[in-house]
Order: sequence, then structure tokens, then C-alpha cells
Amino acid sequence: MPKIGGMSNQERKTELYKLGEFRLIDRLTGSFGKLHETTIMGVGDDAAVVDVGSKYMVITTDLLLEGIHFDLTYFPLKHLGYKAVVVNLSDVYAMNATPTQITVSIGVSKRFGVEDLEELYAGVKMACERYGVDMVGGDTSSSMTGLTISITALGEVSKTDITYRRGAKANDLICVTGNLGAAYMGLQLLEREKRVFESSPGAKPKLEGNSYILERMLKPEVRKDTLQKLRDNKIKPTAMIDISDGLSSDLLHICKNSGVGCKIYADKIPIDSQTAQMAEEFGIEPLVAALNGGEDYELLFTIPLEEFQNVSKIDGIATIGHITAESSGANLISPAGDEIRLTAQGWNALAKE
Amino acid sequence: MPKIGGMSNQERKTELYKLGEFRLIDRLTGSFGKLHETTIMGVGDDAAVVDVGSKYMVITTDLLLEGIHFDLTYFPLKHLGYKAVVVNLSDVYAMNATPTQITVSIGVSKRFGVEDLEELYAGVKMACERYGVDMVGGDTSSSMTGLTISITALGEVSKTDITYRRGAKANDLICVTGNLGAAYMGLQLLEREKRVFESSPGAKPKLEGNSYILERMLKPEVRKDTLQKLRDNKIKPTAMIDISDGLSSDLLHICKNSGVGCKIYADKIPIDSQTAQMAEEFGIEPLVAALNGGEDYELLFTIPLEEFQNVSKIDGIATIGHITAESSGANLISPAGDEIRLTAQGWNALAKE
Repeated sequence: MPKIGGMSNQERKTELYKLGEFRLIDRLTGSFGKLHETTIMGVGDDAAVVDVGSKYMVITTDLLLEGIHFDLTYFPLKHLGYKAVVVNLSDVYAMNATPTQITVSIGVSKRFGVEDLEELYAGVKMACERYGVDMVGGDTSSSMTGLTISITALGEVSKTDITYRRGAKANDLICVTGNLGAAYMGLQLLEREKRVFESSPGAKPKLEGNSYILERMLKPEVRKDTLQKLRDNKIKPTAMIDISDGLSSDLLHICKNSGVGCKIYADKIPIDSQTAQMAEEFGIEPLVAALNGGEDYELLFTIPLEEFQNVSKIDGIATIGHITAESSGANLISPAGDEIRLTAQGWNALAKE
Repeated sequence: MPKIGGMSNQERKTELYKLGEFRLIDRLTGSFGKLHETTIMGVGDDAAVVDVGSKYMVITTDLLLEGIHFDLTYFPLKHLGYKAVVVNLSDVYAMNATPTQITVSIGVSKRFGVEDLEELYAGVKMACERYGVDMVGGDTSSSMTGLTISITALGEVSKTDITYRRGAKANDLICVTGNLGAAYMGLQLLEREKRVFESSPGAKPKLEGNSYILERMLKPEVRKDTLQKLRDNKIKPTAMIDISDGLSSDLLHICKNSGVGCKIYADKIPIDSQTAQMAEEFGIEPLVAALNGGEDYELLFTIPLEEFQNVSKIDGIATIGHITAESSGANLISPAGDEIRLTAQGWNALAKE
């Protein structure tokens, strides 16, 4: 029999941010069993893995909420639709899989008109075409406040190509695609100009000359061509993850899941000149933006040491360090040669407001 | 280059409720192409269908938003977790498929504590165990306001058993599982007692003696046993849909997708006595609750006329009418023999507040 009057008022509720996202997920999902032999991987990687017979299907989902994940003051709806798809596809690629289908659900308050949603879906469509995926369903509903977007992506991969977070071994090389910290500096710039705009609405935002970092924030891409080059060169990553929370946090995921340590070199971490320049303008150490910024959607992966020559030939991949024994911990080597312990200071989805 | 200052202020935005959910979906998704031969069915049925080789996989997703789809004043979190799973599995079963895996994403404001989410996930787990599905992933995030739940379900079905909305043919019988209108009357009762509680918080809610309709609202089940009996008796539905928006609306979906008309008989529509009694108490015609109430999660399906004897033997299935030529339209025959045109007056997810 339901009790009218709302949720039970426990004397002391445990606030969510105290646990943090990953411990909370462990606590909520740890007791769930596994009933199907076709469930190869559940919670705990970039995507779940289901055996569908001759191959694996991967499935991943992301929930994007207005005011938490995006700010429509500066985020064009078309870009938002595009990015919402790409962040899901990034998780599919991080399993070394090829995305095939997505579903798109939205909840919208009455502040949005049909034309706004057409903009959003134009971005979704553009991403579908760019990455070759079919939009096959979803759900559309009103919401009390703001915009909610929930996307689920499916992908396929051969049983031999599937790549988990857990496969890294001591002496493997640590590689990263593209460069890091750009989206974070793009976000800082947008937030600054928003504050300026709010205090004097007539002011012209100073965004010129920063289109690279802005685009990294507003319209990220997954390096699918780089993955294809790895495949063409018959290099199979031993472990892989996409960098969504920041290099530190995501590299620690690989270390934890693989039961290994790591050593990365500060001066090997790829940072674009526009990122470095904007970081300087903000008085932020560019390395800190690269380590903890998040939303890069670059791929972080490990390969056997003997592939060093092969991987060096591929454009757009930087080798930033190597895997060590678990007992050595996870460390960053500064340009001066000092060893600094890596800690996860990436984005906390449950941070206290 | 983004424009700081928010969404473009079109002079006249088209309000969403003016289009309605189904026309809006057509407008937003109509121009999307199909790139993969493995995409068998996209938008437009209970679930999307993907060819994975020896069988089909179906995928469906639902977004549940606090204040729109549920009211925590009377909805216990454990029941909510259970129901959120079941409404997705209902769509899987409506394709004649067996659910196998789900993902669960939640967005929560700081009003919720860890213990609240444990309640919610206890309900999710109970549904997973009851229906034999694995929870394989999801996403956890804070939200600015309220609780958001987004669930995606996967299922599998042989290529010969898959059942769409579009397969109904003239003279097919129209069947429905269980009974209709109960969840709607349960909702009316809860809403009434909520209003009483709000005007005098000390008042004891009068819910006794109505546990059946309350349970139909708060903890619905899918008639998977009835589906199994159809299979055991080698009866394959020609078309199927789950009743989420109300019998009228969902039967009209079958008619539209199949290019047929229908004739159903008012006195054949199954209504539980508790539903009828509560409808009377509210001054609602029980038939109206059954036709337009929604959230029944019963299965509505059509079978060839020659299966009449076979289907009559199965408990829990009512034959309520038959399919006609499209030109005859969709009609309800009243007990007095009058023909009344069926119209979709089910729940509009984009209704104006």
C-alpha cells in the first residue's frame, strides 16, 4: 500500500557526492546477478558487450541534462545534437567496435518550439551521416524544466577485436590520439564570455582566434580514422578507454581494471598551442588542463612494446609513457624528472553544487 | 562561432503540443536515412529491429521524468524502479521478443540520498529477476531538479516470430490480454488522495480495498505467460502492440500501420470489477477508462480468424472484435448496436500544461 506524502524522511540521508560516481555505481549495481551467457561484459567498461552469435554487439548510453552537462546560453542546439551523438559513439569506438545504430530520447519544457527541436535533430542527423549510424528510435516527452537528452548507441565488433579496459600489461606503451585539454579551455572561455555578457548584455563576446578550442568543446569528433590506421597496421590495443573525465582519471581506470601501474611523461603529453595560450591567459598550467580537463573524447590505449616502431609511423598518435607493475603505482614524471602520483581530479558527475 | 545569449528568438515558435507526439516525431525523424542493411525496423513500432545474423535483436527506450510521468508524493521509489523496467520490457514483448539486457540511466537532484537510490535500484533488480534480464550498464548524474530515469531494453527473437504493428489483415480477430482501465482508475484514486492529503496533511488516505487498481498503476506486469501460451499453441499474432496510451490510440496504430479498419464491441472489452466500481465513484464511464486510460501494459494483438477456437481456450485473452477493410474505418459497437468512430484520446506526452 503506498504512503501518500512522499519519500521516507530518513533522519540522515547519505549525500550522493560523498560517495562519488564510481563508488555509487558499485553500491547500486554490485548485487545484480548475471542470467544470460550472452552477457559478456556488464557495468564497468565504456560499453556493455553482448554475444549475438558470430560477433559481439556493444551498447552504451549517456544522459545529458541542461544545466549540468550543457548551457544553452552558448551551446547552439545543432552542435548539442551533434555532440550528444558523438559522446556515445566515442564509447563504442573505445571498445574497438564500429557504431551501427542509435536511439535518441528527449524531454523538453514548453520553452522549446518545434523549430528548436529541428535544430537539435539536424545536429543528430549530421553526426549520424558523418559516422555512418542509423537513428532507429527513441522517446519524446515534455519535461517540467529544461532539456534532457538520452542517447543509446549500438555497435558491432568481431570477437577477436573487442578491447576492454582490463587488458593492459606491464611494459605496454601508453598512447593517446590527438591532443588534450582543448575542450576544457574552450569551456573556460565560453564561461568567461557568458559572465561578461550577463553583466553587460551589449558587450561583444571575445571568441575570435579561438575557433579550435571552441570547436573541441562544442563539436567534438572521435578519431575513427586513427583507429582504422591501427587496424590497417595490424596493431591491436591491449586496453582502451575514451578520455571523457580527463587523462588522469581515465588512465587510472585502465590501471585499476588491468591491475597495473603506469608511468607517463609530462613533456610527452600532446597539447595544442591554442590550448596552451588560453591556459596561460587564465593562469592555468596547460598540463593541468590536459590531465584533468575532460571532455576530450580522444582515445587512450595501450599496445605491446614491440609495436613501438609501427605506432610511431601513424600520424595523430602520441606515446606518452608505459605500463608498470601495480606496486609501482600511477605516476607522472615532470620535465625535471620528479615523480608525481596521479590522482583522479576529473569531472565528478555528482559534485556538490 | 557560437552566439552568447541563448537560443535564437524566432518571432513565432511553433508550440510542441500543436503537433502532438506522433506528428512531431515524423517531422523530426522523417528525413533520416538508413545506412545499414542490418537495420530492419527503425522509428515506428514498439521497438527497433536489428539483424544480428541468425536472429533479430530488438531495442527500445523510455524516458521517465518526475512531474510528468510519476509523482513521488505517492509513488514509492522501489515500485518506480520496477515499473520503469517493466514499461520497457512491455515494448520488447510487444515485438514477440524475449528481453535479455537493459541499461539504466538516472539523473538525480541533491534532494535524493544514497538510500533513496538504493530503493529505486532494489525495484530495478526485482524486475530484472522476475523477467530474467541482465542490467548491463547506464549512466549516473546529478540533475538540477527532480529525478530522471532513462532505460533501454534489448531483446531477441527468431526472424520468423518477430511481430510488427503492420501485419493485421481484414477478418483477423482482435485480442487483448488481461483487462483495461485499471491503472487509470488507480491513478485517479492516488491523485484524489494526494489532493486530500495536501489540503489536510493529517488526513488518512482512503486506499483500502483498492489494492488491485493501485498495483496496476504502481507495479504493472507484462503478460509474458500469456505470450508463452500463444507460442505453446502455435498461434502467431499477425500484429501486436502494447497498450500504453489506451486501447483506442494503440488499436489505431495497428490500423494505420497495417492499412486496415477495425470493429470492436463495447461489451467484449474486459474491465475488472474494482475498475468499474472506482469509475462509478468518480462518475466516469468504465468503458471510457478502458478505451482512453492508458498505462495498462496489456498486449493488443490480431490473429487469423481460423485461430478463434485455439485462442478461446487460453485463459486471460479476450477477443474484442475483428479487423475490417480500411475504408470501413475504426469503429466501436455500443451494447445497443450503435457504431461509434474510434478516436485517439489517449495520453498526449506533449500536452499543454
